[in-house]
Amino acid sequence: MQIQLTEQKQEFNKRHTKTRRRSLSRSISQSSTESFSSAYSDSSEDESSPKDKLQKTSKGLSDFCIKNIKYASHGRREIEIAEQEMPALMVLRKRAGGEKPLAGAKVVGCTHITAQTAVLIETLCALGAQCRWAACNIFSTQNSVAAALAEAGISVFAWRGESEEDFWWCIDRCVSAQTWQPNMILDDGGDLTHWIHKKYSTMFLKIKGIVEESVTGVYRLYQLSKAGRLCVPAMNVNDSVTKQKFDNLYCCKESILDGLKRTTDVMFGGKQVVVCGYGEVGKGCCAALKALGAIVYVTEVDPICALQASMDGFRVIKLSEIVRQVDMVITCTGNIVSRCFHFTMKCKNGCIICNMGHSNTEIDLAGLRAADLKWEHVRPQVDHIVWPDGKRIVLLLMFADEYVASLHLSTFEAHLTELTDEQAKYLGIGKHGPFKPNYYR
Amino acid sequence: MQIQLTEQKQEFNKRHTKTRRRSLSRSISQSSTESFSSAYSDSSEDESSPKDKLQKTSKGLSDFCIKNIKYASHGRREIEIAEQEMPALMVLRKRAGGEKPLAGAKVVGCTHITAQTAVLIETLCALGAQCRWAACNIFSTQNSVAAALAEAGISVFAWRGESEEDFWWCIDRCVSAQTWQPNMILDDGGDLTHWIHKKYSTMFLKIKGIVEESVTGVYRLYQLSKAGRLCVPAMNVNDSVTKQKFDNLYCCKESILDGLKRTTDVMFGGKQVVVCGYGEVGKGCCAALKALGAIVYVTEVDPICALQASMDGFRVIKLSEIVRQVDMVITCTGNIVSRCFHFTMKCKNGCIICNMGHSNTEIDLAGLRAADLKWEHVRPQVDHIVWPDGKRIVLLLMFADEYVASLHLSTFEAHLTELTDEQAKYLGIGKHGPFKPNYYR
Amino acid sequence: MQIQLTEQKQEFNKRHTKTRRRSLSRSISQSSTESFSSAYSDSSEDESSPKDKLQKTSKGLSDFCIKNIKYASHGRREIEIAEQEMPALMVLRKRAGGEKPLAGAKVVGCTHITAQTAVLIETLCALGAQCRWAACNIFSTQNSVAAALAEAGISVFAWRGESEEDFWWCIDRCVSAQTWQPNMILDDGGDLTHWIHKKYSTMFLKIKGIVEESVTGVYRLYQLSKAGRLCVPAMNVNDSVTKQKFDNLYCCKESILDGLKRTTDVMFGGKQVVVCGYGEVGKGCCAALKALGAIVYVTEVDPICALQASMDGFRVIKLSEIVRQVDMVITCTGNIVSRCFHFTMKCKNGCIICNMGHSNTEIDLAGLRAADLKWEHVRPQVDHIVWPDGKRIVLLLMFADEYVASLHLSTFEAHLTELTDEQAKYLGIGKHGPFKPNYYR
Amino acid sequence: MQIQLTEQKQEFNKRHTKTRRRSLSRSISQSSTESFSSAYSDSSEDESSPKDKLQKTSKGLSDFCIKNIKYASHGRREIEIAEQEMPALMVLRKRAGGEKPLAGAKVVGCTHITAQTAVLIETLCALGAQCRWAACNIFSTQNSVAAALAEAGISVFAWRGESEEDFWWCIDRCVSAQTWQPNMILDDGGDLTHWIHKKYSTMFLKIKGIVEESVTGVYRLYQLSKAGRLCVPAMNVNDSVTKQKFDNLYCCKESILDGLKRTTDVMFGGKQVVVCGYGEVGKGCCAALKALGAIVYVTEVDPICALQASMDGFRVIKLSEIVRQVDMVITCTGNIVSRCFHFTMKCKNGCIICNMGHSNTEIDLAGLRAADLKWEHVRPQVDHIVWPDGKRIVLLLMFADEYVASLHLSTFEAHLTELTDEQAKYLGIGKHGPFKPNYYR
Repeated sequence: MQIQLTEQKQEFNKRHTKTRRRSLSRSISQSSTESFSSAYSDSSEDESSPKDKLQKTSKGLSDFCIKNIKYASHGRREIEIAEQEMPALMVLRKRAGGEKPLAGAKVVGCTHITAQTAVLIETLCALGAQCRWAACNIFSTQNSVAAALAEAGISVFAWRGESEEDFWWCIDRCVSAQTWQPNMILDDGGDLTHWIHKKYSTMFLKIKGIVEESVTGVYRLYQLSKAGRLCVPAMNVNDSVTKQKFDNLYCCKESILDGLKRTTDVMFGGKQVVVCGYGEVGKGCCAALKALGAIVYVTEVDPICALQASMDGFRVIKLSEIVRQVDMVITCTGNIVSRCFHFTMKCKNGCIICNMGHSNTEIDLAGLRAADLKWEHVRPQVDHIVWPDGKRIVLLLMFADEYVASLHLSTFEAHLTELTDEQAKYLGIGKHGPFKPNYYR
Repeated sequence: MQIQLTEQKQEFNKRHTKTRRRSLSRSISQSSTESFSSAYSDSSEDESSPKDKLQKTSKGLSDFCIKNIKYASHGRREIEIAEQEMPALMVLRKRAGGEKPLAGAKVVGCTHITAQTAVLIETLCALGAQCRWAACNIFSTQNSVAAALAEAGISVFAWRGESEEDFWWCIDRCVSAQTWQPNMILDDGGDLTHWIHKKYSTMFLKIKGIVEESVTGVYRLYQLSKAGRLCVPAMNVNDSVTKQKFDNLYCCKESILDGLKRTTDVMFGGKQVVVCGYGEVGKGCCAALKALGAIVYVTEVDPICALQASMDGFRVIKLSEIVRQVDMVITCTGNIVSRCFHFTMKCKNGCIICNMGHSNTEIDLAGLRAADLKWEHVRPQVDHIVWPDGKRIVLLLMFADEYVASLHLSTFEAHLTELTDEQAKYLGIGKHGPFKPNYYR
Repeated sequence: MQIQLTEQKQEFNKRHTKTRRRSLSRSISQSSTESFSSAYSDSSEDESSPKDKLQKTSKGLSDFCIKNIKYASHGRREIEIAEQEMPALMVLRKRAGGEKPLAGAKVVGCTHITAQTAVLIETLCALGAQCRWAACNIFSTQNSVAAALAEAGISVFAWRGESEEDFWWCIDRCVSAQTWQPNMILDDGGDLTHWIHKKYSTMFLKIKGIVEESVTGVYRLYQLSKAGRLCVPAMNVNDSVTKQKFDNLYCCKESILDGLKRTTDVMFGGKQVVVCGYGEVGKGCCAALKALGAIVYVTEVDPICALQASMDGFRVIKLSEIVRQVDMVITCTGNIVSRCFHFTMKCKNGCIICNMGHSNTEIDLAGLRAADLKWEHVRPQVDHIVWPDGKRIVLLLMFADEYVASLHLSTFEAHLTELTDEQAKYLGIGKHGPFKPNYYR
Repeated sequence: MQIQLTEQKQEFNKRHTKTRRRSLSRSISQSSTESFSSAYSDSSEDESSPKDKLQKTSKGLSDFCIKNIKYASHGRREIEIAEQEMPALMVLRKRAGGEKPLAGAKVVGCTHITAQTAVLIETLCALGAQCRWAACNIFSTQNSVAAALAEAGISVFAWRGESEEDFWWCIDRCVSAQTWQPNMILDDGGDLTHWIHKKYSTMFLKIKGIVEESVTGVYRLYQLSKAGRLCVPAMNVNDSVTKQKFDNLYCCKESILDGLKRTTDVMFGGKQVVVCGYGEVGKGCCAALKALGAIVYVTEVDPICALQASMDGFRVIKLSEIVRQVDMVITCTGNIVSRCFHFTMKCKNGCIICNMGHSNTEIDLAGLRAADLKWEHVRPQVDHIVWPDGKRIVLLLMFADEYVASLHLSTFEAHLTELTDEQAKYLGIGKHGPFKPNYYR
């Protein structure tokens, strides 16, 4: 079993993963722009690094590293509220009825750390698993939730506003417990898997499998597999129909309006909006914005998606045709938006620019910051970029990954019909499915 | 090369294809119920069988068999109007600019014969192909369009209201021209392909390929292939994204309202409707009905589709829960609706029952006709079924196959964005695609 | 009591009413353009004027004048189908339970004569009224329905394709029965009322009231009233909330899609459409077209309505900005569309122009016909206008008055809540209403 | 001039106004339920009453009474962001170009004090008016905005969490400045007008007029007028079309989703929701919830509104039929919801109850608090009510008045068409309107 990573792969990593974090973290470390960095840090009182602090839970445990254990009770309330919206997992806990179907599982995880993922982690524990967890993103951790998990006895290593060095340090602490070796990996983005490959490759002898939920992570696993170096089974959660349809389409349909309203207080009726990209994320955004009375335009590269946009009632245009007149630009490309700085130059005063795709590389922050413009931080996630002539662009950074719709799915009120024998025979399938390939849905 | 068909396969055919036609044709032949049969025939003046008539075009050609060549000018106008809505094909003709890229192609086809398919057939001819054509359905032929094709010199064998015997006779006449052998097959349902396999199997030595556009036909080809008897390449048009999304979802979204309004003059606002099945067809119907103010319920067997229905705002129920209160039942199952007679028993007075799925097996006509109920034919495609107590069910038979949205697709007004080199590299694809697998759409 | 009409009023009439009919009828009489006129006549077999024929019902009655009494059974079926969709009236009949609350009422009416109005007329009769009826429009009469009414013993004077002279002759025959004098008027457009004023003014001594349902008719009554010449009570049905909201908004929402699809077979998805006017009619059209995937623009003169259009997600533009790119122009102005010929000049090939407002003066037919363009009649209600360079405009003439949504309203499935005493007191109204002025709805 | 108020009127006041505040303030003062009261106060640090503190602006002014002048810079930023969304007012300021059209106006105002109303107040000042302002609601003041207004030199008397006594004290301080007498009143709810009538009736000799924007306030003015005691002109802003359509329909359509998501993080797709009341507020809520995939039911008392709900695709039911199964109850009645406690008894676990109508009397808080249930305050505006068996109801209190859509209206991108002379003549109106009565919109 050989798990050395080639240079080429590291090249890939740098492009896909590190760049994204680095571009942001560089902004933070270098920067005189207080406004920008503060978008992602907590209120300023507590400036010391979590790595330098020794904290203990009320039961005396200390195998964790988080912002502040005192936030635990607040985080617990957040988790309890989230549980109300995640009945599927709660039903799982209930059905187990004290049984421990996951006994023996040692899961090392690396995901966003939010009230919702906390419900997932605690469900794994309730079913018998042991868990150690790190954050997959340096900005998205809810410090109070991390505190609540730690207080509950789970080894969490994560805080909002990690440096790149912190990021890998946390992952390493998760993996390298002295008396504990993981036998399962739950990864979002592939960084955890990458780190184990690179530093602890013999661990794979005991690892039974990997669950990976991001496009990027799946792509990296696929490269490993092609190179013959993927030595354990890996489950591609990203391409599951629930992930594609529910986390992307429905999640974005639900969250785009709230994200914009909460941060910018904009009205949608009559606003002209261009949505870049008509994949599932773009479809969800377009549907919601149209429903609230916005006039929506779409840009697309793929003719089939363009045709869908057109049939759904959206004019398909090039960004350059419309950029001077729109009130909002929503990027849903999952890709670098081309000539980002160039198009913001043409936006009209007050235009809101928001990334909704699952990557903050969509908007070229580094490029925007390099230009000689004034930045004003106005609210969490929201900066104003001010041109010398007074023109003001509202930049809204969303972490759509943060919001995982499929975890909300649940004991929803639906009464399924059951196939009769005759019908099942007609279709040539079993009475209880499986029913059809995803692409029929 | 061995192309004998096993008993088992004939069993399949009987179930999938013949039953459907037989159940209807039996109704016609046996029946004292004038009303029902007349739904599918032209006005009564011209009762003689086309097979018994010798007709000639204005140029003296007679290698065709249709209802009445005199209808040609009316059919021509219908075709010309259809051409306006099918710019993609018209652009193809124009681009050819007199070139004959299909010269040498001898296409034998078996599809619905409508103004739209006529535009397709004449496009093949304009590009140099020779064509002979039969109908894939005994009820759906537009007689005037068939006449216009014949007058244009194309050998067409089809009329509305064929018997089962007529049906196979027409196909046979298409295939068995004395001085002409096909080298390509364009089939919808697999009957033409089946007939050549059965009676003219040596023809496959010259046939270069099959294009098949129906679920049923694809299934039959797949069975042949599994059995090692598919000896030429076959192209599955049914599973193309344009077929799935455009012919099914968008087509049904566009045609359900018109179909119901045109035939029953019903208002949609406030009406309670149950749509059976939430595949692409059901999704299209639900979206349109909801948009016009109907209160829509969905039945589903597949939990993922049920979840989609729920997220899209439709209550998912069992038919039995709701059947007594709904104003319309729309079947979009592509399957036999279970206990059809049983549920119509419970429908309230005036309830409209309509099949939208691509098969008229959805509604068990034979079962309904066997029961001791009165049938009144009120308009084309519409019968009233009257219970002894005066309860009246409106039965609307739709031929969704008849309406092929993808043929309407066209030079639609969309300005595509082009990937930059950097973006293409990021995605790991070419600048001009292909972009993504269908199931991401 | 003085009921002479001034010149000024006749001026009004000419503008509002006669012009509209004359512009059309002139087209018919003068015209070499067979295609245009035939849009409004029945199939050609029966060319003699109804005035020249003596017809009798099966019971020997002859006090009517219609196209052909033989159509009665077909018309009866149409009426029966309409009854299914008009439960409110049917419930009225049932509730009467043989009582004749309208006994003694002698109603002379002048409306469109369709299956729906027939249900209304027959309901009046069922409740004890005596009725005589004429058509308010020379083109909209359903001949078979008129025949069914005659066969049922109701004195109807109407056929499709009346000349202007016919039109007034029919009204006169309704009014001037020898042994019968009306005591109630039900009018749509004011022509009947006008005629009685002009020729039989003493009749008003016995007339108890007028019900008027059109804008034009109400305006004329209002002028009479201002001039002190309205000597009986008149009920303005036009401004009732059911008329404004239901006949206009909901009716047009329901009928625009069907009207366009039925006549032109157009797909809506991705089509660019401009709707002229955002009153109730325009609101209905826009909502339906948007829901089916059209990209809709609005023109408006009234800033409040323009703002509503904008908040509802429609770009408000001037016709001149968009006319070259749209696929359809729908007029909902209730007014002459300005420079009609001028803008059709700029429409692109294949553009559909359709009037939806309640007046066929919206589109300047006379102006269009005066220009040296070729007209081709392609289907009922549809003409192609062909420019010398081959450009083709599709002209669709709708009679939205024909379709009266409020007559469909019914025992709809709604469970009303009842105010408690406390709530009624809080609002300061009675427990059973009336609830609020129309403008709050 | 006689302005004594009768007992009967005070009765009215008590019912309409005081009750509402008292029921809430009593909860606060009596209560051991920390959770409830804290919903409406700022974070706890600063517990002293503003009345007891002497504060000064940076310029040494002290004629105001607010929570904390230190919040001014934060409030200023909020106001600046609001200005971006309120271009109509900003354009007014700009057009004035230094002119002072309102010079001499002395406006005393009593409204919600939010960033949006601050933009209005500062616009009045920019145009030359002098203003003194109090809050019309004891809970809705944004303390930082009040601070910014004070810092800008405007005499503001308001803070979040006033007692009833504070409320009248603030109004009195506004009115009774020693060297300043108002000549205009801008009121929301009628309390300010009422106070002046009661205590300073001679002021009306100098007051030129009253602008009143609430239903309640208009009703009170109307009662005064009927009694012959309204001695100055009063402008009813509430019934303006912009208020009815924009503040109610569009505002609620925009804010319901955000309000629910922001506070409860609920997903809408597939949720069953009952909306009580289908006036403009209910229409807006229903449209938004339906668009996001909720299954929406409506309760109504008014048959016309019920019919509209039905035609728009909502089942009209009684609350009792559906209350056990719904996930949310949204009240939009503008009235006391009947038997409030009774129906919450039947709600299922986790059900969200939210008032959207413009009055917090809709939900009987006093009744709910009287019952022996546990209250937990979980977030601003959100309390959980916990039943002895563990059932938990989520109570969300919205202040829809707080969000005034019409103030956002603006230089929206609409190109108005202008009537031609001919068209204006046809309609019988002027070329530039006025166009039509509100009830046609």
